Amino acid sequence: MARPRNAAIDGRVLAAAAEELRHGGYDGLSIDRVAERAGVAKTTLYRRWATKAELVVALIVTLREDVPFEPSDDPRRDLTELVTAIAANLAATPTTLIADLAAAAARDPRVGDAVRALWAGRHQAVTAVVANAQQAGLVLDHVAPAVLVDQLVGPLYYRLLVTGEPLTPDYARTLITSVLGPEEPR
Amino acid sequence: MARPRNAAIDGRVLAAAAEELRHGGYDGLSIDRVAERAGVAKTTLYRRWATKAELVVALIVTLREDVPFEPSDDPRRDLTELVTAIAANLAATPTTLIADLAAAAARDPRVGDAVRALWAGRHQAVTAVVANAQQAGLVLDHVAPAVLVDQLVGPLYYRLLVTGEPLTPDYARTLITSVLGPEEPR
Repeated sequence: MARPRNAAIDGRVLAAAAEELRHGGYDGLSIDRVAERAGVAKTTLYRRWATKAELVVALIVTLREDVPFEPSDDPRRDLTELVTAIAANLAATPTTLIADLAAAAARDPRVGDAVRALWAGRHQAVTAVVANAQQAGLVLDHVAPAVLVDQLVGPLYYRLLVTGEPLTPDYARTLITSVLGPEEPR
Repeated sequence: MARPRNAAIDGRVLAAAAEELRHGGYDGLSIDRVAERAGVAKTTLYRRWATKAELVVALIVTLREDVPFEPSDDPRRDLTELVTAIAANLAATPTTLIADLAAAAARDPRVGDAVRALWAGRHQAVTAVVANAQQAGLVLDHVAPAVLVDQLVGPLYYRLLVTGEPLTPDYARTLITSVLGPEEPR
C-alpha cells in the first residue's frame, strides 16, 4: 500500500524545486539542494521523487491544475473562458520556469512525456470546444479542430517565449475573434 | 578601426558554443570550455565576445540568417514560402537549442533583446505579406496582421516546444489555409 503523503511537505518541496529551477535551470537543479531549501530530509524527498525528472514532473502537475473549465451551450463563451484562463495561467507563471520546462522536455524524454501528457489534456479540452464551435457553424470546417487549437494556444507560448509581448485577456479575445470571426450582435 | 575577423575561427567557436549549449544549457555554458572545444585561445575568444550573452547572441544570428524570402505579387505564395521556410529552419535546429535560447532570453535581458530583435525582423517580413494578403482581399481585415502572424508562426514554436508534433511543410500549409481559407481554383 502506498505511504500516505504529507501535503504540507509536498508543497514545501515543490516550492523549493520551482525556486531552484528558476535560479539554475533544469541542468542546475539538484535534489539535495531542493531538500535543503525545503528543510526536508533528503531520504524523505527521495522516497517521494526518486529522480530529478519525477520531481519536475510533479511540479508541472501542480502548475497545470489551476485552469478551470465548465463547458456550456455557447462555444464562443467556452472558448473565451478557456483561452483567457490559459493565458492568465501562463502569465502568472514565471517565464523562466516555462522556458526551463520546455528545455527539460526537449532534453529528457521522461519530462517530455509528462509535459506532453498534461498539455494533451488541456489541448483536448480546447479541441472539444472548437469542434462544438464548428458543429454550431461558428467556424468554417476546412481546417481540423486541432490546427485551430494550435492557432489559439500556440500564440500565447509564442508571445511568452519568443516575442515577449504581453498575454492580456484582450489578446486572448483577439485570437478567438480571428478564428471565429467578429461576434454577431444578438 | 575594428580588427578584421577570421571567419573560420568564428565558425569553429560558434559550432563549439552550440555544442556546449546543447549539452549543458545556457547556465552550464562556459566561455573557457567553448575556447577549449574550438581549439582557440581564450584571449582570442574573449576579444571577439566578451560575455556569454554576446557569444550566444552571435550564435542566434547565425541560426537566423538562412530563412530566404523573395516577395512576389502573390501573397498566398509568399506566405506559403515564408512560413514553410521558417518551419523547415526550426525543424532543422536542435529543439534543445531553441528551448535553451528561450530560457536564456527569459533569464538574461541582453539575450532577450537580441533574440527579440532577430525575431522582430522575421515577424515583420511575415506581417508585411499578411498585410498584402488583406489588401488583396484574401484575408478578412477584422484582425490586425500582427495577430495573424502570431497564428501562423506561434503554432510552429508551440509544436516544437510544447506538443512535440512534427513541423512538416503540410502543417505549414494547413496553417495558411486556416488563415486565408481554401485556395480558389484558377
